[in-house]
Amino acid sequence: MRVLAKEILKAAKDGVKEARVAGWVHRIRDMGGVSFVVLRDRSGMAQLVMDTKPDFTLESVISAVGEPALNDRAQGGAELRVKSLEVLSRAATDMPFQVNGDVGRMGLEAILDNRGLSLRNPKIRAIFKVQSTIIAAFADHLRSEDFTEIKTSKLVGGGTEGGTELFEVDYFDRKVWLAQSPQAYKETMVGSGLERVFEIAPAYRAEKHDTPRHLNEYVSLDVEMGFIDSEKDLIELEKRVLARVFAEVAAKNGEELALWNAAVPAPETVAASPVISYEEATKIATAEARVKIYDINPEAERLLCEWSLRERGSDLVFVNEFPRRHRPFYTYPLDNARTMSFDALFRGLEITTGGRRHHDYQTLYDTLPRFGLKPENMEAYLAMLKYGCPPHGGFAIGCERLTQKILGLGNVKEASLFPRDRKRVSP
Amino acid sequence: MRVLAKEILKAAKDGVKEARVAGWVHRIRDMGGVSFVVLRDRSGMAQLVMDTKPDFTLESVISAVGEPALNDRAQGGAELRVKSLEVLSRAATDMPFQVNGDVGRMGLEAILDNRGLSLRNPKIRAIFKVQSTIIAAFADHLRSEDFTEIKTSKLVGGGTEGGTELFEVDYFDRKVWLAQSPQAYKETMVGSGLERVFEIAPAYRAEKHDTPRHLNEYVSLDVEMGFIDSEKDLIELEKRVLARVFAEVAAKNGEELALWNAAVPAPETVAASPVISYEEATKIATAEARVKIYDINPEAERLLCEWSLRERGSDLVFVNEFPRRHRPFYTYPLDNARTMSFDALFRGLEITTGGRRHHDYQTLYDTLPRFGLKPENMEAYLAMLKYGCPPHGGFAIGCERLTQKILGLGNVKEASLFPRDRKRVSP
Repeated sequence: MRVLAKEILKAAKDGVKEARVAGWVHRIRDMGGVSFVVLRDRSGMAQLVMDTKPDFTLESVISAVGEPALNDRAQGGAELRVKSLEVLSRAATDMPFQVNGDVGRMGLEAILDNRGLSLRNPKIRAIFKVQSTIIAAFADHLRSEDFTEIKTSKLVGGGTEGGTELFEVDYFDRKVWLAQSPQAYKETMVGSGLERVFEIAPAYRAEKHDTPRHLNEYVSLDVEMGFIDSEKDLIELEKRVLARVFAEVAAKNGEELALWNAAVPAPETVAASPVISYEEATKIATAEARVKIYDINPEAERLLCEWSLRERGSDLVFVNEFPRRHRPFYTYPLDNARTMSFDALFRGLEITTGGRRHHDYQTLYDTLPRFGLKPENMEAYLAMLKYGCPPHGGFAIGCERLTQKILGLGNVKEASLFPRDRKRVSP
Repeated sequence: MRVLAKEILKAAKDGVKEARVAGWVHRIRDMGGVSFVVLRDRSGMAQLVMDTKPDFTLESVISAVGEPALNDRAQGGAELRVKSLEVLSRAATDMPFQVNGDVGRMGLEAILDNRGLSLRNPKIRAIFKVQSTIIAAFADHLRSEDFTEIKTSKLVGGGTEGGTELFEVDYFDRKVWLAQSPQAYKETMVGSGLERVFEIAPAYRAEKHDTPRHLNEYVSLDVEMGFIDSEKDLIELEKRVLARVFAEVAAKNGEELALWNAAVPAPETVAASPVISYEEATKIATAEARVKIYDINPEAERLLCEWSLRERGSDLVFVNEFPRRHRPFYTYPLDNARTMSFDALFRGLEITTGGRRHHDYQTLYDTLPRFGLKPENMEAYLAMLKYGCPPHGGFAIGCERLTQKILGLGNVKEASLFPRDRKRVSP
């Protein structure tokens, strides 16, 4: 029966006479008569002591049987005194990437080009252990509030946000597009009576720019909810979701956070995060920048988060009441100039856009010309509202951006296992 | 404060004097001086009693305030005596689909064309409540066995299974393809040291045939695991996963199962499901059919499940040791003719394909010519094995097929919110 690296200490304490471990060879120290091998498995590292010369290479996969023994000087306080050893997979020595290296000195392109190897570095692997927790906590919290998980098609006849920035797919004898968001589908689900839905799925943006904050394919954590009064209900929901995410990451990923010298916000600071209007936000950003800021651009996002942390003790700030000209046609108006919409900014980066949507057929119909849209081109969307649709709204959290900002990564691509950008389509 | 339809009974028992409900108008019975309205929300149905004439249409969304009162003759044992009522969204009367109808008499095309309306039928909505539970139970069980959830790219440079049956995507100035499966990525993750991973994501097959068992886009519940001995470890894992899925559906979706007159298999029958070799399976199928059956085709799948239920009391049967000629190049051989691979058949339908994979670089390299493959075209795949990869394998469960067979749906498309087939790309 295999034991994990982290279980050797307990086995030694329990007086287990023989245990088997298996994993990757992280380090070899050949001292002549005796050799020390550091074995790495999914749980961590453990020291193996051998009285034979290791005949395997670094990063080979081995299985070893031996006696667990206490040793204060070994990592984890115990070691395995090897009796027999099998090489399961011998690693070639022309490795293009140094697994043991310092992550800070590794180039991003090398990390991404060699994903299967770079992930062997515990610090890089930590990113995706945290991401796995984020996804679970997001889903678990929403289920606790009676949300239903949905899976909608990523192949659509057109984009909700307009026809640009879409990837075209050859679909038998026609063209379809990769979905930018499940927006229309999740609204349909709310209107169908599910009322509260969420989806975890890829989303696609054919944007040409290549920045540390953009991915052409990302994991969208989508939420839509019926019977709301305004975007404020959504902001409160997102605070609860994020508080749960942070709490779970703190509880389950202490080691991973430590590797990045990172900490999640305390739940009480999430609940108390400021909600400021777009107008107020531009004023605060202007005061922070000491130069007029006209829009919530990336610089303003950074400044507003600095302000929020300094003045309100929160890493998170919500900006609501965006002008109608900045939001899509389906956004519910607060008045003639403003909308019931919001962004969430976290540690300097927009991680969420959301808002209440139009739910009344006639009102939306009458609004379309203001956005240069023709009702006859919007039939599918309008049909969704024609037969009874509750007031509703939703938001989406960018999973990679949230991961990035929890750990303090410099580039969002570090938080994507196999990121896609204008140049990168492999591995 | 809003109460749900199912909460009115408790409110009445608690002596609550005023409560607000909100939802869709499911039925209206105008008795002259008094009207009865059946309100439908995400929790179920409730009777509203009004002393005014309803001025709203069926399927409109309303919000009503009134006094909860016990009434044995009302659905759920209570009703709301309405004091005030607001129409939140008025439904047009030209509805193309009868929400109240008998699902058995609705055509599949009408159900799919009118998804936003057909889902209002509680029996149709039930399918996706069950599916949401399946997804959660799958993930929860794997997490309990220390699996990490991953999200990999769906845009790939080529197909693992070969270049046919792929959808082509215009990706900036080049072509990429929609992933048929995360096969190579999940193997990479196992080899990187995560050891145990799962993914819930769309998968794409550009197959032209249109059958009740095929979708061109489906949700793949993918699993990959390191340090296994053979496919038998994977079969045991899948039994535990499915037992958990069935247990959760039984616990959470009793009402939904009842609407379909369906039941999930008992956990002990799942654990005791037979595992038979491909050779044995073709013999059993031949005996059942009384005519020679050469392959595990759809008819054989049906016959084997009939046999399994009759002879072994299980809805589930595993077939392993498929011939090498039937399995992809990466499948680990048992001997020169057979592989460490398996299918899971459930209630007459294949829901899973899986197996152990090659983990040794040189062995796979030497095997490629047998499959007509050239090592120089397989560099990315081979590289995954070059620097230490444990013995490993995995499987995938088709989420829609599992949903279909739990509820006894005639066509897998019924278990997809927005199915895609050769002709259908909307809604």
